[in-house]
Amino acid sequence: MAMLGVMTVITRNAERSDLPLVSIPICFPAMVPMFASRLDAFDSLARVIMHDDLETDENVLASRMAGASVVISTGIHFSHDLMDRVSSTVRCITFGGTGVASFVDLAQTRRLGISVCNAVHYGDNAVAEHAIALMFELTHRVGALNARMRPDHWPISDIDELTHRTLGLIGFGGIGRRVAQMARGLGMPVIVWSRHPDETALAELGASAASSIDDVFARADVVSLHLALNEATEGMIGDDQLNLLRPGAMLINTARAELIAPGALERRLSKGDITAGVDVFAPEPLPPDAPLRSFDNVVMTPHVAWKTPEAFAGIVEQNVRAAVAFLRGESYNVVV
Amino acid sequence: MAMLGVMTVITRNAERSDLPLVSIPICFPAMVPMFASRLDAFDSLARVIMHDDLETDENVLASRMAGASVVISTGIHFSHDLMDRVSSTVRCITFGGTGVASFVDLAQTRRLGISVCNAVHYGDNAVAEHAIALMFELTHRVGALNARMRPDHWPISDIDELTHRTLGLIGFGGIGRRVAQMARGLGMPVIVWSRHPDETALAELGASAASSIDDVFARADVVSLHLALNEATEGMIGDDQLNLLRPGAMLINTARAELIAPGALERRLSKGDITAGVDVFAPEPLPPDAPLRSFDNVVMTPHVAWKTPEAFAGIVEQNVRAAVAFLRGESYNVVV
Repeated sequence: MAMLGVMTVITRNAERSDLPLVSIPICFPAMVPMFASRLDAFDSLARVIMHDDLETDENVLASRMAGASVVISTGIHFSHDLMDRVSSTVRCITFGGTGVASFVDLAQTRRLGISVCNAVHYGDNAVAEHAIALMFELTHRVGALNARMRPDHWPISDIDELTHRTLGLIGFGGIGRRVAQMARGLGMPVIVWSRHPDETALAELGASAASSIDDVFARADVVSLHLALNEATEGMIGDDQLNLLRPGAMLINTARAELIAPGALERRLSKGDITAGVDVFAPEPLPPDAPLRSFDNVVMTPHVAWKTPEAFAGIVEQNVRAAVAFLRGESYNVVV
Repeated sequence: MAMLGVMTVITRNAERSDLPLVSIPICFPAMVPMFASRLDAFDSLARVIMHDDLETDENVLASRMAGASVVISTGIHFSHDLMDRVSSTVRCITFGGTGVASFVDLAQTRRLGISVCNAVHYGDNAVAEHAIALMFELTHRVGALNARMRPDHWPISDIDELTHRTLGLIGFGGIGRRVAQMARGLGMPVIVWSRHPDETALAELGASAASSIDDVFARADVVSLHLALNEATEGMIGDDQLNLLRPGAMLINTARAELIAPGALERRLSKGDITAGVDVFAPEPLPPDAPLRSFDNVVMTPHVAWKTPEAFAGIVEQNVRAAVAFLRGESYNVVV
């Protein structure tokens, strides 16, 4: 994805070959000034070489990480081969996400003795807002009507309200709790399924516990998924749950596509009596011929829920802190 | 706007020529079943003749109101001539809106001795939600990204958060207060300008008073208008206020276009450093060649903010109550 001619290299302490090397081999555009302004943190600790594009070629990436002790990788998906190629010097890799298993095989890094650090909660508010934004597009249809204002001039349409619709949350971590707080302001009763119900947090947010995942799907007008993806949650939502949704119900997924069994969402949408707002897909990018694209009762965004300035800044800060901590023999956000 | 062949006439007590006539000459589609289910309210009080389309021809409308004592008009814009033509029998007209001056010349009805009733607060929540929905489209861009998912497959985009952005409300009636409540859940600090500041309500909603309209425009990241249109408020927002908006600010108008001086919004948008979300225009429908359509930093919806099932139901209920009250010699929602 490198754009021709615009990549630049930013270095810090370039002459200090006595210091260990920190490599920032790729960088989201919004993060470039954020990382650049934080490189002071490495003074007297490390040299830094930073590239400001989103290169994906493994040979180029390997050369950019050559000789590095620490890699601030943000969004690199490491193949086994790429990891092996950098493992002679790299001892710590930081990622710009919470679920590092999406980026790297942790069994491999463990075997190679490479420490892996993540970033946490940086996107809770952004993703919670995006779940609400998807609900609004499914009800108030601002984006759809705005698009029609040009060719249709004055499209005739009714809209719907969210207030008084029961919101069912599957998962009640940092994001689910923010969604509950926003929904309360919107006047939506909130019911929650969580593996470990936190009665105090529920009470504080005016939410109530559901007895099971099925209970949420049967009772809620809007079901929003806020679970981490792992062996226990993969495919947890299947036809049985989706078929409990009542006509008019909405399903919101800003978490991970793999929480839903393959094909189940498409089968439920094909009945035409529910709507869905989806920011996450499997695989990503969603292929041009993906069946999900054929439904007009789904609103889709390209996994952008977390891509806000606040979230980018949180990732940069946490990744810099993790790298600095590693160089000082300390630990911060260490996953493995 | 009558659709060929689909108009039907619903009557109640058709044989009771001894009773006064209530005419419902037009009806929004969503309101048809709502009015039909409430006609019992007129038993022993009146005959009812209801048409279920949105006819606009004045001759047809006059014939539909012929002989009626009460007209439940919801959305008819009465010309002086049309009002004169029905004034020999009509003694009460109810409207499906709060600002009846948009539908009828109140000086004329006063002169003709016709009582005018409105509907109030039916759309407060719907419009408040729509203001928030416009803010979300300007930040999370769900509708725009969804539209681009088809031709572009996987559009690359960052988004923005609302949390921590200061919301400035101009007006603090039923709608403004609901917006403040929703914004609080979203974690937006709220500042308010109101002609008659209600310190108790401000405190309850965690909002604070601004010293002037200019103060709101200078300090807020998002300014949302929630004033009624009248002689005192028409054109109240002009170039001076809009030029106080900082780069990146958003202006939301779900109230009335005429609150803003003609051309002032277009002049401010042309600088390119602010965005706007707009549901109201002057005139409506917005003409195909209106300059506002040429800006890509505005999101527009066709005056739909109030068009929810809940709001329609509120109008129907209040209009029926006003008509029944008039027939009983009582008064409900009487404006004049």
